[in-house]
Amino acid sequence: MKALLFHGPGHIDWGDVPDPTAEDAADAIVRVDAVTICGTDLHIVKGDVPEVEPGRVLGHEAVGTVVEAGSDVRSVRPGDRVLISCISACGRCRFCREGRYGQCRGGGGWVLGHTIDGTQAEYVRVPFADLSVHPLPSSVDSFDAVLLADIFPTAYEVGTLNGAVRPGDTVAVVGAGPIGLAAIVTARLYSPERVIAVDLAEPRLAAARFLGAEATARADERPEQLVADLTGGLGADVVIEAVGVPESFEMCMRMVRPGGRVANIGVHGKPAVLHLEDLWIKDITITTGLVDTSSTPMLLRLLAAGRLPTAELITHRFELGQMEEAYDVFGRAADTGALKVALGGPQHDAVIAPAGR
Amino acid sequence: MKALLFHGPGHIDWGDVPDPTAEDAADAIVRVDAVTICGTDLHIVKGDVPEVEPGRVLGHEAVGTVVEAGSDVRSVRPGDRVLISCISACGRCRFCREGRYGQCRGGGGWVLGHTIDGTQAEYVRVPFADLSVHPLPSSVDSFDAVLLADIFPTAYEVGTLNGAVRPGDTVAVVGAGPIGLAAIVTARLYSPERVIAVDLAEPRLAAARFLGAEATARADERPEQLVADLTGGLGADVVIEAVGVPESFEMCMRMVRPGGRVANIGVHGKPAVLHLEDLWIKDITITTGLVDTSSTPMLLRLLAAGRLPTAELITHRFELGQMEEAYDVFGRAADTGALKVALGGPQHDAVIAPAGR
Amino acid sequence: MKALLFHGPGHIDWGDVPDPTAEDAADAIVRVDAVTICGTDLHIVKGDVPEVEPGRVLGHEAVGTVVEAGSDVRSVRPGDRVLISCISACGRCRFCREGRYGQCRGGGGWVLGHTIDGTQAEYVRVPFADLSVHPLPSSVDSFDAVLLADIFPTAYEVGTLNGAVRPGDTVAVVGAGPIGLAAIVTARLYSPERVIAVDLAEPRLAAARFLGAEATARADERPEQLVADLTGGLGADVVIEAVGVPESFEMCMRMVRPGGRVANIGVHGKPAVLHLEDLWIKDITITTGLVDTSSTPMLLRLLAAGRLPTAELITHRFELGQMEEAYDVFGRAADTGALKVALGGPQHDAVIAPAGR
Amino acid sequence: MKALLFHGPGHIDWGDVPDPTAEDAADAIVRVDAVTICGTDLHIVKGDVPEVEPGRVLGHEAVGTVVEAGSDVRSVRPGDRVLISCISACGRCRFCREGRYGQCRGGGGWVLGHTIDGTQAEYVRVPFADLSVHPLPSSVDSFDAVLLADIFPTAYEVGTLNGAVRPGDTVAVVGAGPIGLAAIVTARLYSPERVIAVDLAEPRLAAARFLGAEATARADERPEQLVADLTGGLGADVVIEAVGVPESFEMCMRMVRPGGRVANIGVHGKPAVLHLEDLWIKDITITTGLVDTSSTPMLLRLLAAGRLPTAELITHRFELGQMEEAYDVFGRAADTGALKVALGGPQHDAVIAPAGR
Repeated sequence: MKALLFHGPGHIDWGDVPDPTAEDAADAIVRVDAVTICGTDLHIVKGDVPEVEPGRVLGHEAVGTVVEAGSDVRSVRPGDRVLISCISACGRCRFCREGRYGQCRGGGGWVLGHTIDGTQAEYVRVPFADLSVHPLPSSVDSFDAVLLADIFPTAYEVGTLNGAVRPGDTVAVVGAGPIGLAAIVTARLYSPERVIAVDLAEPRLAAARFLGAEATARADERPEQLVADLTGGLGADVVIEAVGVPESFEMCMRMVRPGGRVANIGVHGKPAVLHLEDLWIKDITITTGLVDTSSTPMLLRLLAAGRLPTAELITHRFELGQMEEAYDVFGRAADTGALKVALGGPQHDAVIAPAGR
Repeated sequence: MKALLFHGPGHIDWGDVPDPTAEDAADAIVRVDAVTICGTDLHIVKGDVPEVEPGRVLGHEAVGTVVEAGSDVRSVRPGDRVLISCISACGRCRFCREGRYGQCRGGGGWVLGHTIDGTQAEYVRVPFADLSVHPLPSSVDSFDAVLLADIFPTAYEVGTLNGAVRPGDTVAVVGAGPIGLAAIVTARLYSPERVIAVDLAEPRLAAARFLGAEATARADERPEQLVADLTGGLGADVVIEAVGVPESFEMCMRMVRPGGRVANIGVHGKPAVLHLEDLWIKDITITTGLVDTSSTPMLLRLLAAGRLPTAELITHRFELGQMEEAYDVFGRAADTGALKVALGGPQHDAVIAPAGR
Repeated sequence: MKALLFHGPGHIDWGDVPDPTAEDAADAIVRVDAVTICGTDLHIVKGDVPEVEPGRVLGHEAVGTVVEAGSDVRSVRPGDRVLISCISACGRCRFCREGRYGQCRGGGGWVLGHTIDGTQAEYVRVPFADLSVHPLPSSVDSFDAVLLADIFPTAYEVGTLNGAVRPGDTVAVVGAGPIGLAAIVTARLYSPERVIAVDLAEPRLAAARFLGAEATARADERPEQLVADLTGGLGADVVIEAVGVPESFEMCMRMVRPGGRVANIGVHGKPAVLHLEDLWIKDITITTGLVDTSSTPMLLRLLAAGRLPTAELITHRFELGQMEEAYDVFGRAADTGALKVALGGPQHDAVIAPAGR
Repeated sequence: MKALLFHGPGHIDWGDVPDPTAEDAADAIVRVDAVTICGTDLHIVKGDVPEVEPGRVLGHEAVGTVVEAGSDVRSVRPGDRVLISCISACGRCRFCREGRYGQCRGGGGWVLGHTIDGTQAEYVRVPFADLSVHPLPSSVDSFDAVLLADIFPTAYEVGTLNGAVRPGDTVAVVGAGPIGLAAIVTARLYSPERVIAVDLAEPRLAAARFLGAEATARADERPEQLVADLTGGLGADVVIEAVGVPESFEMCMRMVRPGGRVANIGVHGKPAVLHLEDLWIKDITITTGLVDTSSTPMLLRLLAAGRLPTAELITHRFELGQMEEAYDVFGRAADTGALKVALGGPQHDAVIAPAGR
């Protein structure tokens, strides 16, 4: 089959690899119908994620159709259209029992496109399929659903839930890329008084306003002052970090009110300075986290009910074979205005297994 | 009256000042029967707390007897023996309404011995007396109760509650001074599987074991390894920082398990390094906080029921007039083995107001 | 002044009584600008609330202007436009310290129009004014705000918060009178998947749909079946009782899913049957409660931000002097279609104290 | 093999049945080393649980040794000594994903000795073994551990956790049979100020005092008054129902303070009267529930650490072949003083599979 292969820092191509086969009774093989590229994939391509080995098929977000299910798989069967979660879950370890699938100690966690081959391919093997794929109701479009593979549960769990957003809150979201925008959308599920979005790029602030942010500020124009002005000098109840650099995290710490919460979503490569000399007395809560995707079934219900505008984040659509072009467009987001790029086509929907399998 | 006066960095004395008088209808004047010295007082004497002005009477922990209550005071009256909380609470501001008295915006918070005259004196004016003093049942000894003015609610609220200690947890407490020891005692209210205490001083580790720590480690002998060994390599569920230096905070971050919590109690003067490059993925919660003393009524119930071994922390007793000597002993804790020093005497208990008032 | 006087079961009139005067340093005297009638007032008139004595001025909901504030009152002053909460709070007792003002043991709780004279008058004395009135921002209309005196905090706290509504939930609201409608509005602050409203009266179901209920059912047409059909046979995550009769409560218990919650708001006069033989195994949580109004400041923020459609519930407006007519219209709601009736007039807004005071 | 067979109401015997065999790849076959009888078993024998069919092997509590594990079982293997939980869990359904195994929709829940053959036998088939058995550390005695199959997680989850016991609380436990006594023990994990135990039988009250109850009252001597006297007339913070009759439940409702919680553990056969005319205003929370056993791994840690006195509840020990006698002793608890009876013998511990298998 064709797949997007990582050949080492800076080198990827859409090349040929053997079709995946089931290796375990809990595996499913899924034909990929819709797939996206994540900012994390760009980090991998740059070489920032050293555990990804050359030859790896990248990608951890997809919607597809089950073509084969192992004997242990009880929840789906061939022909089912499913969302493939970015997180796989053994379902047995201490962490999985608490719904903390992202911390799975039994062989799951973030493995797709990381330690095993991923979803940017015509087919993908999904381990522990029962807890790692979600059947889709027929009313849900694949390209609406694919954003629930990673960024919406990430924004919801690691941003909105960890931040404990409540009705009436002032929420500041620092970073208005795809994850930050999803954080705006999911924070609004709790009816905050206002969401303040911060970014360097004006088009992303415009997207933030379109998705419901009541106020926006350029990151280089003292956004802390806007937060202070809107909150009587107190600061935001909840601040969500969606960038992943020390400067951004430290800005968040200056925006939060006494008794408030800072929820970090950003993937960081360097340490930050934590000003405990100011913060020790301020009753602050800071959270970090990898997504568990335990909220995915609920988010799917909201999506099916028309309450979650996921597809608004997809700015570019490609066919699967245009993967390299899609990487290029997504990688030059500042120029192209890309938020999420999605690949795949409706022509697949009529058949379960392609000829040749 | 006599009081412990701060005259600027390095200079204190037990000198004469006018008796305090009620300035507001919500004030109470309390005769001090039992008082202690806090580590924070030593910081003030060193000059680390610049908002404390020369001439200030220090001290924010005491038990005493009400000698005068303003017209607005409804909860206590002259003759009542009361615990004076280290935190005063206006009861009206947004934070007080949530029980976050430490963040009071209405004139309360930590004011005693800080921005107004404090408790290391024969008499003290307590603002907002209704929410700032607690009547004591006759069965409770003043010297048992005085440790509930600050360190026990601090350890309980900022350490145990913020850390969300649960039955079966492994709790690491870094720093076995008075606050750390109180954290051990209050963490044990939730029946953790084990408490691991860490300190540089062997006598403090012995005190930790006496108060219930199942395991102890010298801070300079890789205590992270002990925590890892006792938890199958996973780390502690809850880590409580009770020192207040960057090295200690950073050690806590290395001890906590994925999904765990670090509750900072320590008073910090410098920033710490937060290794977000490791922590972003680990589902960590970090909390900071000033005590609210909203738990004090509950702690008093436990104390009255004989369930809180507070007085075990008092290593030295003095008469009130020996304040300077008490400061000396407490300030040289490494030599003297002092944990908490307490001052006052039972001879006061028979009279409400001294002659001459 | 003029006031609505209760003279015993079945007898009320809009008559003359002396102007209220401050009795305590914590009191405020407030001129009433906008006032409503509560279903509870009808119960009082019928004689169902025996502790209300003849001669009592009724009413516990109002917006007005402070004309006098006692020496202990620190939060408002004459001239301030304020919301008068249906609950007064001493701020000092065990319950007030936890924000459970409805259970105040210090002289507050529900006292207005119950054990002391109330708000259906030209002036009212409000005890413990600091915690019992809320200053209104100038942007908020008095008739929008007056619904925050009782029914919106009641619906939010006793229905939505006690019911722990979460995003994606199915919420059934049994009873679509004013409280039930407010429950629909406040439940929607948490983005449930759907709200199902149940009532006997078709006009009230229409109001429910207008305010956002996705589905409605006549109470006499097996609404349990609709709930089952919409939830795959499982039942509702949250059921809110907003009627107050045994049949309604028992219907709620049949609608809730295993692991779900039933939040009772209704004022009951008779016991209900609790089918523990079915429920003991079902992981059900049942809550009851009187409102605390601790959420009022937050609801006011949402109202000021335009996010709370309170005034949609006001179907009839009268001048203050038309109180008896308003009672008649409100008391015959089945005929008149009344939801909330509101009284008062804008002519008052220019002056603080009327001539003659 | 030999097993305790239910032949219809009133008829049981210790008879011969075929050895169980694995029916599914997720099954384990376990040799029973220690087993107990539950009050629920007596209900079954009386005919109160109609879904139990004649011919069924009873029992849902045991410790044993795995003799066979299906290909889908990843957590245990033959030779492992395990605790068999009274609840089986598919691990895939909506409820299992939330740790609510008792409500499993995928074939688990309470099935052992109920809808499939149970543990009062020489061997038992355990479905969904990965989430339904728990490996035991060698330091834990089988007869200490067997009480963690049902009554300790039941008391902890359905009583203590649902009741949300907190430090300093007054907890009333109505019913001092095995479950009530386990509720006393587990409530004390949270350091309540006091536990008040209520029962009709003086020996059970003596057991309650032995296990830590500070106060006890005969159920027929107005225990509500004792609760009121000990709480200044307020009532208990938490009341745990551990009997299962309407009178007992209704007594609990009279004991709870405003704002308090009533956690029902009792298995009820009849409805109770819920006095909503008193309770609607009292801020009460009532919970019901079947155990999930999601707390079992934590309770096992506490047991291994010596912090859970489970075996104190075992009053009688028998060999497995004495099952009928054990039923007789347990069924006449009022005469025999039985709390828990346990069967099995240490002679089994040396071998994995008996001859003939």
